[in-house]
Parts: sequence; structure tokens; C-alpha cells
Amino acid sequence: MDKLSVVKIGGNVIEDTEILASFLKDFTALDGLKILVHGGGKKATEMAHQLDVPVQMIEGRRITDAANLEIITMLYGGKINKNIVAKLQALNCNSIGLSGADGNAISAVKRPVDKIDYGFVGDITAVNEKLFQLLLNNGLNPVCCALSHDEKGQLLNTNADTIAASIAKALSKHFEVSLWYCFEKNGVLRSIEDEQSVIESIQPTNYADLKSKGIINAGMIPKIDNCFDALSNGVKMVKIGSPKMINGNDNHTTLIL
Amino acid sequence: MDKLSVVKIGGNVIEDTEILASFLKDFTALDGLKILVHGGGKKATEMAHQLDVPVQMIEGRRITDAANLEIITMLYGGKINKNIVAKLQALNCNSIGLSGADGNAISAVKRPVDKIDYGFVGDITAVNEKLFQLLLNNGLNPVCCALSHDEKGQLLNTNADTIAASIAKALSKHFEVSLWYCFEKNGVLRSIEDEQSVIESIQPTNYADLKSKGIINAGMIPKIDNCFDALSNGVKMVKIGSPKMINGNDNHTTLIL
Repeated sequence: MDKLSVVKIGGNVIEDTEILASFLKDFTALDGLKILVHGGGKKATEMAHQLDVPVQMIEGRRITDAANLEIITMLYGGKINKNIVAKLQALNCNSIGLSGADGNAISAVKRPVDKIDYGFVGDITAVNEKLFQLLLNNGLNPVCCALSHDEKGQLLNTNADTIAASIAKALSKHFEVSLWYCFEKNGVLRSIEDEQSVIESIQPTNYADLKSKGIINAGMIPKIDNCFDALSNGVKMVKIGSPKMINGNDNHTTLIL
Repeated sequence: MDKLSVVKIGGNVIEDTEILASFLKDFTALDGLKILVHGGGKKATEMAHQLDVPVQMIEGRRITDAANLEIITMLYGGKINKNIVAKLQALNCNSIGLSGADGNAISAVKRPVDKIDYGFVGDITAVNEKLFQLLLNNGLNPVCCALSHDEKGQLLNTNADTIAASIAKALSKHFEVSLWYCFEKNGVLRSIEDEQSVIESIQPTNYADLKSKGIINAGMIPKIDNCFDALSNGVKMVKIGSPKMINGNDNHTTLIL
């Protein structure tokens, strides 16, 4: 099976021109087939303020109403996605930008309203394996933004971490998949203030211990659960760390099942 | 050779939800392979006003500075493109949105500064025939926005009429291409006030006459020149009219070489 890297970058990479430029060089240099997945960071909130669109948070979670979805579509699907693709082309890394609607790449259902109505948020139901295979096997590296669609004409805001994990799992039938989560820290830290306190590896046994001691906190738990889920579903390797880890920086966290 | 329709829509189609919905149904019903090319209409100017970005016009032509290019990228490449693709998917018309950077679809050079500096405006240098062939031959209908790129990392604003003509010409080596320009009139009119005064066909002989009599005015001349250029370069059929013409409305203008 061919090797495939699925690399997710967060706001800290997108928002800093130099970090992004350096990351895109490293991404280009990665051996084998590759897919980039990006979120949008704080830019959506900034633009909402500029356009006088209210940003509603309930229990610390953002609500995606129609006006906020429009902003996300412009930023994630337009500005951020197209600029990343243009920059990759300049590095001779032939890439193609995708929302979940493009080529029916990622289907979802609008999250059902329970206690909270999250608005236009999508829970993924399918990844179009054939589309990704077609593009990858023809030298086109997909660049995916954090948008899915419901196949009925509605775009939906979907967490970029989840998109990356869903793609990685779906394609592990066809490729030997590595999943990389790049964020603002060097890895999962024992102490949030100490960049050197990276936990080298997390496996189910020490994970339970780290959780019970409160070393791994609430925000990190769904991320790590996602990682274990990916490993349980065919993904060969999952790593969490700074963007530099894809270029061989050893200081990062490896998830091991 | 397979038949391929290249259909360009302008602001009047994009800006009206009902006209767009009706057009997308007709587009879906078109026989054979197809490509949609869209501009952005007046939305870019509206958004520039909302964001307090100055819109500079010189000799009636819009200047694309960095802030305006950002708006165009968000609107054309993001909001308009992704929503059209999502709506086509709902009609079971499998489509994929493209800027010129995606898959290196449309390369251009930044227009050289002569008397006027148009800013980030691109003059097309190449259409990636292999990319379009790959997508079309695999059941993916490209939806192209009015953005090209310079292969050095810079997106460029490019007239959607020109993008449609360039794609049509380049692909006429591989397909039997029809090029359709849909706009707010029923066709090229003898009298701008009279929607019934559509000129049924324009050929080089009556074109010279229509120009000398001032019946075809300045704004229409580059459009028609583009059409003749397409016909001279392998495109089999060019028509100008309302969006309804692609669904068999006979009231439109046919260009004949």
C-alpha cells in the first residue's frame, strides 16, 4: 500500500505568515501522498466583529448561525484555502482545495437539536474515498477546509480535527495512513507552562492514569479520544505536536494503541 | 469527440436566489459534459463598502488592490463557488469548485503596468487541459470562479468571460465545445430598451455593419470579439442570451464565423 500523510494545522499556523510558509515547505517535502486539513483559527471571530455579526457562545461552544456560516465559508473555503493552494503550487506541490461539497468529498448531517441548537454544524456521515483516491493517484494533494455538506444543498461547519480523523480512517483501507495534528504546543504537555514537558507517548494504560491525575485536561481529551479512535480504525500512526514535527522534530507526542 | 458545454453566468444569475436555482436545474439537465464559470457581480463592491475597503476605479475599470483581491477571493472562491457546488450536489450534479490555483487549473501573469496599474489582475497564459480532462472524464463538473494564479503563490482577479473563452478554446482539442454566455438580456439587442430586438445571429459581415452603425456598443464589442476568437480557435458554437437559453429558449444570439 502507498503511504499517505494526513496533516491537520490549526490557527497558530494559518495566522502567522512565516510559520505557514515554513510549514508549507515541510509539507511539500513530505514523502509520499498527502492531504492537508486546515481550520480557520480566530479569523472568523475577527471578521464577524468587522461585519457586525454577533458571535453567540453557549456553554463555551460557538453557535453557527447563517451569518456566521457565510463568514466561515468565505474565510475557510475562500481566503485561507485558496491562498494555501496558491502557495503550495509555487512550491511545485500540486494541490487542490476542497470543501465537503466539492466532489461530494465529505457528507454530514446537521447536528440534531438537543439541549443546544448548534446551528449549521455538521456531523460527518461519509468520506468519498473514490474522490480522494482519484485525486491522490493523479498527483493532486487535497487541501480540505473545515466545511462539510448535507447533500441537500447546505454547507455545514465541521471541526477540522474530526475531518482529518474521518479522512484518515476512511482512507486507511487503501493507504498506509499517518495522521499528524499540528498545533501551538510541542505535544501533549505534562505541565501547560513547560514546553519541555512533552509526554513522549500516550497509550491506553498511561492515558487513564494521566486523566485521573488531571494532567490531561478537558480540552485535550476529545482530541486524544479521536486519535485512539483513528488507531482502532486502521490508521497506522498518530502524532500530536508543533508543525516542525513533520520535518523530523523528535519533540512530539506519539499515540500508541 | 464527447460534447462539452462551457456555460458562463454573470451577476444577475448569482444575485437572485430563484434565478440561480432555476439555472442550476437547467445546467444539471444539460446533456454531456459541462463546466460552469461564474463571476461575482456587485457583491464584491457591497462587501468592500461593508468592510470600509476603498474601491478605486480608473477610466471606468476597477483596480484590484490587495484588500479588494482578498474580498474577491472570499466571495468568488468561497461563498459563491461553494454554495453553487453544494446546490449542484443536491441536484445530483457532481461538481467540484476551482480557482485557477486548484490543480494549477488556470495560470496567468499579473498585468504589466503601462498607463494604468490594474493591481492584482491576471492575463491568462495557460489552461491545464489534463486537469479538466481528468475531472470531466471522471464525472466531476468543474465550477470555476474568476480567479487565476501566477504559479508563484499569487492569486489574480481575471474576467470570467475571458476564463470561459480560454477554457473553451483549450478544451476544443479534446471535446466538441459549446460556449454559452448567460447574462441579463435575451441576447445582443438592436435597441437596448427592447428585449424583443434580439439579433438572431452575428457573423463577421453584419458585425462590421452593426458596429459602424453604433448598434453594438463599446461594452459588447470585447465580448463579441472574444466569441469570434473562440470560434476561430476550435470552439464549435457560441451563444449569448439569458440563462433560459441553455434549456432551449430560442430567443438568443448565435455567433457564426
